[in-house]
Amino acid sequence: MDGTEARKIDRDEREIGPVPPLRRHHAGAVGYRWDGVPVKQYKETGTHFQKITRQVLFGANDGLSSDVRYFEIWPDGHSTLERHEHAHAVIVINGRGYVLIGEAVHSIAPFDLVHIPAMTWHQFRAAPDEPLGFLCLVPCDRDRPLRPSTEEVKGLREHATIGTFIRL
Amino acid sequence: MDGTEARKIDRDEREIGPVPPLRRHHAGAVGYRWDGVPVKQYKETGTHFQKITRQVLFGANDGLSSDVRYFEIWPDGHSTLERHEHAHAVIVINGRGYVLIGEAVHSIAPFDLVHIPAMTWHQFRAAPDEPLGFLCLVPCDRDRPLRPSTEEVKGLREHATIGTFIRL
Repeated sequence: MDGTEARKIDRDEREIGPVPPLRRHHAGAVGYRWDGVPVKQYKETGTHFQKITRQVLFGANDGLSSDVRYFEIWPDGHSTLERHEHAHAVIVINGRGYVLIGEAVHSIAPFDLVHIPAMTWHQFRAAPDEPLGFLCLVPCDRDRPLRPSTEEVKGLREHATIGTFIRL
Repeated sequence: MDGTEARKIDRDEREIGPVPPLRRHHAGAVGYRWDGVPVKQYKETGTHFQKITRQVLFGANDGLSSDVRYFEIWPDGHSTLERHEHAHAVIVINGRGYVLIGEAVHSIAPFDLVHIPAMTWHQFRAAPDEPLGFLCLVPCDRDRPLRPSTEEVKGLREHATIGTFIRL
């Protein structure tokens, strides 16, 4: 077992039974919702993220080899600064915000496509006055995200673009 | 090699090189478009579909085990009536329309989630006066779709719901 194997993540357990053919979308005051899809915490524990929820739309139970999650960040909230061996494919579907990928920050809006390669630092942030909602595809079989070490944080803080963007 | 192996499909060949971190979306008069994503024919040959285009947004080159395609059907157009061993996970993102899944027809609108199980007849159709655009996820390694035989068409035509909906 190498380091990657040791860091394998337990996949999201679906809380619903067999997936119905149609689950309707609702755009409510509190964000995007779907019939039968529970709204979950972004992560079980931690203070390295803010104002963000997670909904698993499709997964291995549906005959796919990828999980499709919908993340919604409230205005000015952010996801964890992290990196991992698996890639992310992201499609923005709601609101506006920013994403750090490696050494660059990009503004993002609905239907923009974001690709995060393996072992690349990344962090999403909603605009100050708008939520940011996006689909995020990952392989069902994936490794656990890594957060920066104290030494890595020091290096990131010294980078002109990264240092002013990241929240830890 | 069994029947499924023999029917394995050649995956879409990406026409672009390494995937950039951000590809912006454009909603033009002719439909949804993305930087660097070519608009392709839905299928190479055939008359069993109408007014439909295909764009491959993410694929195996991106470190994923699924392909993410965007299909756009112009008003009153339709996809092929078909079924296959692999499942489809579909997220509508544009316009309105209908989908046949097995023995039921559903109206669909943006962000509705559609799941098409293995070996289930399905066909998408745009509304008469609106396009229908949707993301469709499939495993990279998948079998080739099957169209109904003459005998199967006869059975489908005799079904009250299916018979009035399908286009061949």
